[in-house]
Amino acid sequence: MEYLEKLGQQAKQAARELNCIGIKERNQGLLAAASLLLAESDNILAANREDIDRARQKGIKESLIDRLALTEERIEGMADGLRQVAGLPDPVGEITDMKTRPNGLQIGQMRVPLGVIGIIYESRPNVTADAFALCFKAGNAVILRGGSDALSSNLAIATVLQRALKTIGLPEHAIQLLTDVSHETAREFMRLNQYVDVLIPRGGAGLIRTVVENSTVPVIETGTGNCHIYVDKTADIAMAVDIIDNAKTQRLGTCNTCESLVIHEEIAKQVLPEIVKRLLSKHVEIRGDEATRKICAGAGMPETSIIPATEEDWGCEYLDAIISVKIVDSIEQAIAHINQYNTGHSEAIITQNYDAALRFQREIDAAAVYVNASTRFTDGEQFGLGAEIGISTQKLHARGPMGLKALTTTKYIIFGNGQIRP
Amino acid sequence: MEYLEKLGQQAKQAARELNCIGIKERNQGLLAAASLLLAESDNILAANREDIDRARQKGIKESLIDRLALTEERIEGMADGLRQVAGLPDPVGEITDMKTRPNGLQIGQMRVPLGVIGIIYESRPNVTADAFALCFKAGNAVILRGGSDALSSNLAIATVLQRALKTIGLPEHAIQLLTDVSHETAREFMRLNQYVDVLIPRGGAGLIRTVVENSTVPVIETGTGNCHIYVDKTADIAMAVDIIDNAKTQRLGTCNTCESLVIHEEIAKQVLPEIVKRLLSKHVEIRGDEATRKICAGAGMPETSIIPATEEDWGCEYLDAIISVKIVDSIEQAIAHINQYNTGHSEAIITQNYDAALRFQREIDAAAVYVNASTRFTDGEQFGLGAEIGISTQKLHARGPMGLKALTTTKYIIFGNGQIRP
Repeated sequence: MEYLEKLGQQAKQAARELNCIGIKERNQGLLAAASLLLAESDNILAANREDIDRARQKGIKESLIDRLALTEERIEGMADGLRQVAGLPDPVGEITDMKTRPNGLQIGQMRVPLGVIGIIYESRPNVTADAFALCFKAGNAVILRGGSDALSSNLAIATVLQRALKTIGLPEHAIQLLTDVSHETAREFMRLNQYVDVLIPRGGAGLIRTVVENSTVPVIETGTGNCHIYVDKTADIAMAVDIIDNAKTQRLGTCNTCESLVIHEEIAKQVLPEIVKRLLSKHVEIRGDEATRKICAGAGMPETSIIPATEEDWGCEYLDAIISVKIVDSIEQAIAHINQYNTGHSEAIITQNYDAALRFQREIDAAAVYVNASTRFTDGEQFGLGAEIGISTQKLHARGPMGLKALTTTKYIIFGNGQIRP
Repeated sequence: MEYLEKLGQQAKQAARELNCIGIKERNQGLLAAASLLLAESDNILAANREDIDRARQKGIKESLIDRLALTEERIEGMADGLRQVAGLPDPVGEITDMKTRPNGLQIGQMRVPLGVIGIIYESRPNVTADAFALCFKAGNAVILRGGSDALSSNLAIATVLQRALKTIGLPEHAIQLLTDVSHETAREFMRLNQYVDVLIPRGGAGLIRTVVENSTVPVIETGTGNCHIYVDKTADIAMAVDIIDNAKTQRLGTCNTCESLVIHEEIAKQVLPEIVKRLLSKHVEIRGDEATRKICAGAGMPETSIIPATEEDWGCEYLDAIISVKIVDSIEQAIAHINQYNTGHSEAIITQNYDAALRFQREIDAAAVYVNASTRFTDGEQFGLGAEIGISTQKLHARGPMGLKALTTTKYIIFGNGQIRP
């Protein structure tokens, strides 16, 4: 497809130029982009109103329209984001593991940009600026493919970002937006291996699945989180209740929200009524296994307080005010259950036992494994990464919250003085 | 497909067990496998003869039959390989970047096995033992899909490896072989995301392309190398000739063999006749651009010594006694040419100029960038990695020679004492 071919070539060329541009210039680009976003906010808001009008005509839900809507404040938020990224340390250039081989070759690894990054995302237009900021800071060119609902907004923002770069003599094609938002073009984009080094989908489970299934370009899978909290038999009960409350209710719709509890039978009688009381007071629906329901009934709770859980519940990321509860007879059973049903995101144990804590951390297969803390901390900023492009739930390249370093790679550099292989 | 489902479940279960097995036991497994391979060499050789007889009946070329053939010596080589891997340091368990956040959370990254690794390879049966050794050392279960020509040999080897593990109480499904070698099953295998964490193809360009195009499991692309040597205007001529000779002729069929020369016009008149003389003496066919042919004619060489190069030559990995030559007028042009046609493998500059050396290393987009050394060094053992599962030419996860570390990932481990997110 000629259109994508051209975008790809331009991105590749911009990436080569960026590779030779120092951090001072890249930061200037980010600051120029921040200023121009603010200066052009009227135009961006006007474009956004077009998107919103179109969405209303199409009868799109108000909750989705809210995600689409920009305000002066949200544009300021984008500009702030660009400035914050400008303030972060340069992720590229570092040379590590330099060593001299017996034949005198000096071999080390230099951290360099990935090259061209493709981002496929849904309706929030602020991703256009956020994703650009991180990719550009790390020296990459980015090709963005946003949702069709936000096309006018995304185009207005992308045009401003390009202009800002161009004005100060930086390669404008460091950011490009796919304006052809057809599914056909999206699928071609996912197969643009010649020009795109990595694809990062940002959005719901459906989008991510589509990208994983159709892409021949390497993908970093971000995402879905069926996160568990396991209450061990030695847990501090007050701590368990507070952490579960926080992990479930502090925000319902995020990937690090707790969706399922696993409780040791020896502590269930004491801890379960406290947990249920707290969660019901926050209007959380509780779906429990047989044992859970028995214990709650034994504690004098009305039968309706716990809905029977089905097999389907164990694997479900509710993203809603619902939680499942399973009683186990050992930490082994807890670990086996979590390893069977989790999505490789965030898992926690609440325990006062040293061996149980270390064992859980070692044996649970997930991006982030907590002892005595809320799963809600799985986040680039909370982890001290400065910013985040997403949370990887796969095991290649980057796992867990991805900051700037996840947008780089390394190359071997070798200094010789005439060595040949015998 | 039920068959793959079962293999996948068994691999996943073995991976979980391996994750709890220390390095001492894993090394014992490798040593047991080495001993049993030697003890069972007669059976393995008998199985190999079946493969060879079948190949001869099918009229397969002798050069391919040579790749397929096992001997006592080759089996000893496999056993040696297993023992060597047993002697390498444990790549997992290391905890890095541990830091305490303002809220008291201690967050670090623990290096852990990838889980289940799929390897798809061609005719050499020794890969069965080699790939198992590296995957197992790093705590992974492996599912191998070898070429149909080597099925009997691979099955004999895999059976021995499984038995060796079982005998000393280690999970036998840490290694499994796909005995259904149909293309249909191979394609299903490439989509076994539920059980397989990463696929590594090992083989020629066709195999790698098939895996990249059909796999939904994350792939580490290994491989093809259209490697260049750029002779800068300040090059030491004798060094240039020796390095080019080595990089082209030391072994013709490897991915780090030099396939193309790029020569600065200011040194071409002096260096080119020397290079051509040396390469012709080694029976290498030279395909040059217009300028190359002119200079050689000017130096009194017969017109037939340089065949005219076509556009196709610049992108060609010959894997044969052929090399292409292009004359450029600057290092910029050399870098642009190499970045356009290379495959991201190994590239070298020969120069005495400090700025040219550093610039080439910074601007060339490849896994390994050399100054004044042969590209033939791109190899796990030569780089001091101890062993190698392949050479990655993609940018995600691992780039260049992949040792044991490339077969691991990290997970965040977080120690709290009741932290909740405000």
